[in-house]
Amino acid sequence: MSAEEVAKAFVQHFYNTFDADAQQLGGLFQSSSMLTFEGQQVQGSGIVEKLKSIGKVTHTVKTIDVQPSCTPSAIMIFVTGSVQIGGETNPLHFCEMFQLVSTGPGAYYVHNDVFRLNYGL
Amino acid sequence: MSAEEVAKAFVQHFYNTFDADAQQLGGLFQSSSMLTFEGQQVQGSGIVEKLKSIGKVTHTVKTIDVQPSCTPSAIMIFVTGSVQIGGETNPLHFCEMFQLVSTGPGAYYVHNDVFRLNYGL
Repeated sequence: MSAEEVAKAFVQHFYNTFDADAQQLGGLFQSSSMLTFEGQQVQGSGIVEKLKSIGKVTHTVKTIDVQPSCTPSAIMIFVTGSVQIGGETNPLHFCEMFQLVSTGPGAYYVHNDVFRLNYGL
Repeated sequence: MSAEEVAKAFVQHFYNTFDADAQQLGGLFQSSSMLTFEGQQVQGSGIVEKLKSIGKVTHTVKTIDVQPSCTPSAIMIFVTGSVQIGGETNPLHFCEMFQLVSTGPGAYYVHNDVFRLNYGL
């Protein structure tokens, strides 16, 4: 799979799983993984707890940009879109960055995850 | 300098230089550097040409998030803010991601740069 194919498959899987059951995202993160969510830093197993704490969310992806990272085993992914949080009907714009690092053929974990809301407001 | 200090100094330098004279950004990029600007991919020396082609811009930074990358020599930086382009008085919101890679003590180049504006909601 090309980096673009990996990125598109990851993005679809990540947000579909997040919206259905954030608990199931646990397999994407390792102890060294980092999430910065609206400026709040969380690491390792704290990441899924943080994502679950947001409650019911529905993401709509607008753009996906992909670049190879500085090591051949890693991929940079940059996403923009909108998200409805809880019972709110007004979607908020978001941007989110991931760095995926390979753990073997066709397998990756999320090393970096930075999320910001209200981009575009 | 900590990663946070490097990131803040870089962000201030990058946007101040961009707004004053984008030509002077050339020293931040190498032949392997990549820019994705609103989905358009440019590499190496094409990056400064692309940034210059945007014309007169004025950036205002709102947030800076920093994470260590998957190699000790690299830093992830995630910026949101607003930018006035050309003679437009309405600022547009943007988000931008950088990966800086060390080239020696206290010296970095931009390996990854992804930029997205918020129009076309």
